[in-house]
Amino acid sequence: MKFATAELHSRIFIGLVMDDRIMDLQKAEKKLFELETIPETLIECVSEGERFVRHVRQLVEWSEKKNNEESGSFIYPLSDVKLLAPIPAPRKNVICIGKNYRDHAIEMGSEADIPEHIMVFTKAPTSVIGHLEEVDAHKGVTEALDYEGELAVVIGKTGKNIPEAEALDYVFGYTIINDVTARDLQKRHKQFFIGKSLDATCPMGPYLVHKSMIEDPQNLKVETRVNGELRQSGHTKDMIFSVAEMIETLSKGMTLEAGDIIATGTPSGVGKGFHPPKFLHEGDQVDITIEPVGTLSNKVK
Amino acid sequence: MKFATAELHSRIFIGLVMDDRIMDLQKAEKKLFELETIPETLIECVSEGERFVRHVRQLVEWSEKKNNEESGSFIYPLSDVKLLAPIPAPRKNVICIGKNYRDHAIEMGSEADIPEHIMVFTKAPTSVIGHLEEVDAHKGVTEALDYEGELAVVIGKTGKNIPEAEALDYVFGYTIINDVTARDLQKRHKQFFIGKSLDATCPMGPYLVHKSMIEDPQNLKVETRVNGELRQSGHTKDMIFSVAEMIETLSKGMTLEAGDIIATGTPSGVGKGFHPPKFLHEGDQVDITIEPVGTLSNKVK
Repeated sequence: MKFATAELHSRIFIGLVMDDRIMDLQKAEKKLFELETIPETLIECVSEGERFVRHVRQLVEWSEKKNNEESGSFIYPLSDVKLLAPIPAPRKNVICIGKNYRDHAIEMGSEADIPEHIMVFTKAPTSVIGHLEEVDAHKGVTEALDYEGELAVVIGKTGKNIPEAEALDYVFGYTIINDVTARDLQKRHKQFFIGKSLDATCPMGPYLVHKSMIEDPQNLKVETRVNGELRQSGHTKDMIFSVAEMIETLSKGMTLEAGDIIATGTPSGVGKGFHPPKFLHEGDQVDITIEPVGTLSNKVK
Repeated sequence: MKFATAELHSRIFIGLVMDDRIMDLQKAEKKLFELETIPETLIECVSEGERFVRHVRQLVEWSEKKNNEESGSFIYPLSDVKLLAPIPAPRKNVICIGKNYRDHAIEMGSEADIPEHIMVFTKAPTSVIGHLEEVDAHKGVTEALDYEGELAVVIGKTGKNIPEAEALDYVFGYTIINDVTARDLQKRHKQFFIGKSLDATCPMGPYLVHKSMIEDPQNLKVETRVNGELRQSGHTKDMIFSVAEMIETLSKGMTLEAGDIIATGTPSGVGKGFHPPKFLHEGDQVDITIEPVGTLSNKVK
């Protein structure tokens, strides 16, 4: 199941993506069951965990029994809607893992940059934008805007001191994040928050894919293209700290909450890794592909 | 004006603190004006900015005209209520400035630690607790829990690219934060987020003091006592980056929102600065005094 937060005729709704169509879950529920239990935001749906997923499965089954005319009132062509970030307003900063791929750590400096322990910083919620929304170039603020294609994990169940073996039970699903970074600010301010938190530098989406579609989060290809040129071609098997390990470490003494978003780090091939560096400029198009989530595409304004 | 988020008989309310009494603002408004415009949370009140402050002034004037019997239904002895953190559930991570006092930067390492540029990291919203609530010792997670007494700024008006000269117009008021830190985790994970975000390691309060009570945020004494022993005796005039400068720098390309909280850094005298270090242990009592905000007191559980 692929979920989206989408907009049609100024109405923002939670949608289930089915190939080239999208089902408005609240409208479907009203029409099919005369019920109004689906929350307004995907973050609230996620917090309901498996109950929400079961309910959506029922909706799909029922809608398949209906004729096309009736389902037309709650199933739209995907091309008719505007996608927002799956979670457009996170309740806390996006949690980000730094230098989580060996080759990327090296391209950022040297072998000495390979972390022995997980490195964690955050991006402000105000940095989040959706698929096809524009990344701000921040002229006058940064001269070194860079892309970082990453698998992102969305937590579905609140927990603390979660052992690695149970960690994936706490995951609701996966999306893609472009952890756009102002390299000059990142370096100047030492701690990463400022260089990672400029407005419109956290593209997220296009979909939030339920974990039932991803058997193993450590078996996914991560590809980033800039203006069609393949820059990052990584694989999540090469993460230094796996998704389960990061959940274990983060939750040691810190409650992870349903709706929390963890960007899992980027493979090698970022702009800073090239000589000379290939930073982003106005008009550049960045596409990050992680199947089965899809491709997250954003232009730099 | 001193505001608090408080609890009485399981009702959480926004209160105005008047010496040893506290006025339940929603109840007062209902009784005096037959109105229900005061929001449920202090973060929403803060977002209304000066409109909220003017309204509260009116409430106080009217209540002074009433006899005691009537005002008894919405003014309680302060000692009867439990104070929560003024903003118990921030909408994003608490923004923290690192090494913002020269002497503290040196005690953390050497002169080389004095930052040339502002250093910013964050604390998870789940770390926030109130005055008199207990700091968690996190036995088995950290062996080096430390205190950091800090002036904290609460933003009252959303803005971006705010010039230093106008920065204080964007402040609603001030509170105190104890930026409790797991020194071993802070060091081990390089980026500070993990060492700063354990549950119950961000005491905040006791009050949110409106800026009309603080003429100059760079003219405040910051004192921290552990079990009565004076450990930190600093002054906000010694900040490397002033409150106005930090608002200017943070808002360059990043929207600061009403309700955002900025912990402005700690003066010298933290536990790590002593030889041998004086870390916190179970049963320790930490009191941070910044007048006119008051004293934030917390025991380590």
